[in-house]
Amino acid sequence: MGNYGLRETTMGDGRPPRGFPDAEFEARLARAQTLMAARGLDALLLTTEPDIRWFTGFLTQFWLSPTRPWFLVVPGAGKPVAVIPGIGSEAMGRTWIDDIRTWSSPHPSDDGQSVLSEAIREAAGEGGMVGLPMGPETHVRMPLAGLQALRDGMPGIGWQDATQVMRTLRQVKSPAEIDKIAEACRIACDAFDRLPEIAGAGMTELEVFRAFKIACLEAGADDVDYLVGGAGPGGYGDIISPPSERRLQAGDVLILDVGLVFDGYYCDFDRNFSVGPPSDAVRRSYEAVWQATEAGLAVARAGGTCADLFRAMNAVTAPLADPSAGGAVGRLGHGLGMVLTEFPSIADWDETVLEPGFVMTLEPGMATAPGRMMVHEENVAITEGAPRLLTRRAARDIPVLSAS
Amino acid sequence: MGNYGLRETTMGDGRPPRGFPDAEFEARLARAQTLMAARGLDALLLTTEPDIRWFTGFLTQFWLSPTRPWFLVVPGAGKPVAVIPGIGSEAMGRTWIDDIRTWSSPHPSDDGQSVLSEAIREAAGEGGMVGLPMGPETHVRMPLAGLQALRDGMPGIGWQDATQVMRTLRQVKSPAEIDKIAEACRIACDAFDRLPEIAGAGMTELEVFRAFKIACLEAGADDVDYLVGGAGPGGYGDIISPPSERRLQAGDVLILDVGLVFDGYYCDFDRNFSVGPPSDAVRRSYEAVWQATEAGLAVARAGGTCADLFRAMNAVTAPLADPSAGGAVGRLGHGLGMVLTEFPSIADWDETVLEPGFVMTLEPGMATAPGRMMVHEENVAITEGAPRLLTRRAARDIPVLSAS
Repeated sequence: MGNYGLRETTMGDGRPPRGFPDAEFEARLARAQTLMAARGLDALLLTTEPDIRWFTGFLTQFWLSPTRPWFLVVPGAGKPVAVIPGIGSEAMGRTWIDDIRTWSSPHPSDDGQSVLSEAIREAAGEGGMVGLPMGPETHVRMPLAGLQALRDGMPGIGWQDATQVMRTLRQVKSPAEIDKIAEACRIACDAFDRLPEIAGAGMTELEVFRAFKIACLEAGADDVDYLVGGAGPGGYGDIISPPSERRLQAGDVLILDVGLVFDGYYCDFDRNFSVGPPSDAVRRSYEAVWQATEAGLAVARAGGTCADLFRAMNAVTAPLADPSAGGAVGRLGHGLGMVLTEFPSIADWDETVLEPGFVMTLEPGMATAPGRMMVHEENVAITEGAPRLLTRRAARDIPVLSAS
Repeated sequence: MGNYGLRETTMGDGRPPRGFPDAEFEARLARAQTLMAARGLDALLLTTEPDIRWFTGFLTQFWLSPTRPWFLVVPGAGKPVAVIPGIGSEAMGRTWIDDIRTWSSPHPSDDGQSVLSEAIREAAGEGGMVGLPMGPETHVRMPLAGLQALRDGMPGIGWQDATQVMRTLRQVKSPAEIDKIAEACRIACDAFDRLPEIAGAGMTELEVFRAFKIACLEAGADDVDYLVGGAGPGGYGDIISPPSERRLQAGDVLILDVGLVFDGYYCDFDRNFSVGPPSDAVRRSYEAVWQATEAGLAVARAGGTCADLFRAMNAVTAPLADPSAGGAVGRLGHGLGMVLTEFPSIADWDETVLEPGFVMTLEPGMATAPGRMMVHEENVAITEGAPRLLTRRAARDIPVLSAS
């Protein structure tokens, strides 16, 4: 029954409104159609949750079910056409989309193909050019055999990679989008502030993670989709694992890396904690990644490139990293929005020019010993001047949890 | 740092152990290789989280990031080969997999293709046959252009749809898998039992959802990935929406449909509540879907088909549904496991024969008025005899929440 994320509604509690006004979707569509025209695209075919939500506002956790394909056809002129399973028609009907075509899904032999084919033909004509994201960081969320049959059934239609179109559109966030990401960051900061009350030595990682998730919900998160991290004496070895049954003990460094959601938008940042007083080595590596973030904040602005940002942060940490630990530094951050990790990458190979409205994670890290690392992270919105810090800056000294 | 879900660990608290013994993965691989041999497949190429986890035990929320592709190559003999981004190597190293090949991802031009290509050639030979899931309910989780380049670069390799192979393997759950699903169900049942304490008239849907998620975590959930539902006077209109700011009021029927996770396995069921005493109409439709579930439980056993199950439940509800509400009944349940919704479908077109070890949702529903429905759901494991009910059976009469 709910309608959040569909039409804009305000709660009057100082938090950002949920959803977006229709004018925002109209502006997005206009931007898209301008880009499509420049590339000779008669239509876009979109199959993934964020691409479809960007145009429609359609927000549901039902995407967690891989059973059914969902489609959006964006024509060169006029509003997008939703081609979706019947189970979604009521919820899609509450968005600004008018033309909603459904079929009974799952269907064993024609799971939407014939309805979709008709919609594509109407939008692109028999000999039109259709854009489909096929490049880096994309996938097509429909059966490969179904896609092949769709293409075979429309031999006159040309297909072009639309990765760059969707990237260009989605990576510049509107002010309303940035406010939602900022709210997610605010909630996570409040929950991190409570960690010394709710976690300390003797608790298992599983217990700490659970307590932190509850704190995030209590602070106003809609969902805590992503929480990884770990702890170990003097540092941690990887940052993508779920929690173990190991108990925190004095001398551990704990990292929690959270992607929680407000109205369909993520934060993505981490915080480090020392269980009991930190060693000098821990203090030094925390200082290094904190300073690397400062260096990033100093250069993160419109007109610079992702590679500039990488080099500014890496220049601080590289001389201090343990050379015996080996392993190349990967990227030091990425875009953020409706998805936990978006384009572009803060990497030495990514020459993407930052624009006002990009939202980025700054995520410098370094190997401190073989199998040990220290990572730090903030979320910022790019402007013409100094970036807007969406997270509250991490403490200057590593926060301490009770060791007893 | 954590290792849950990788090697088996027992907590000694009466809950199922986390992870699986290596013997379970050995048995899965043997089943797979028997099927592969029968179909003339020299290797499988897998790209999605559940397919890769089924063979490896690799459990991480990092899959939420769509940026990087991950691959598993299953040869006709010998252990699977993981071809994964370097960021995953430490976590994958804690599974039973030995051969782990990495690259620095994301990479702008060769995001794993060349490493993958080599692994496929080793497993299948230059002229081998590779199975890739391409059919219903699947997608290939890598860029389409990357897949095309991979195929073009290995012209001697044949490609076959492996949907049926993975379906046959995954839909029969091991006893250890069923225990994890049962634990997820137990946790959700405990949280539902607390709903009358924590929810009632005057709370918004958003507040009710948040309170219920916290109750799930307190009851032992690792994550509450999926919670949808809604409320309205005398019933609800769809069951896939997020919560709204509408306040519960006397006369509402509230449904919560939860997919929470224990050690990587889902429950998926709903419960209905009446805010204040239910009307006679609500009582009658609740009775109908409750009895339809009884009819399903009576025939859900090995040797029967999904279509039998559909017909048994539909025979109860169809005569009672509001004919003016229109709309075909979709499926009335589905498989359940590492994913919220798995094959097969309880639908009149699905002649899949149930086998011991299938875990199914029984989910009869009916339109009670235009735009109003009532849905009921239980989770069961199929045996030779009566099914094992994994959920605690829903109350005989609709539970009541405080109306004041």
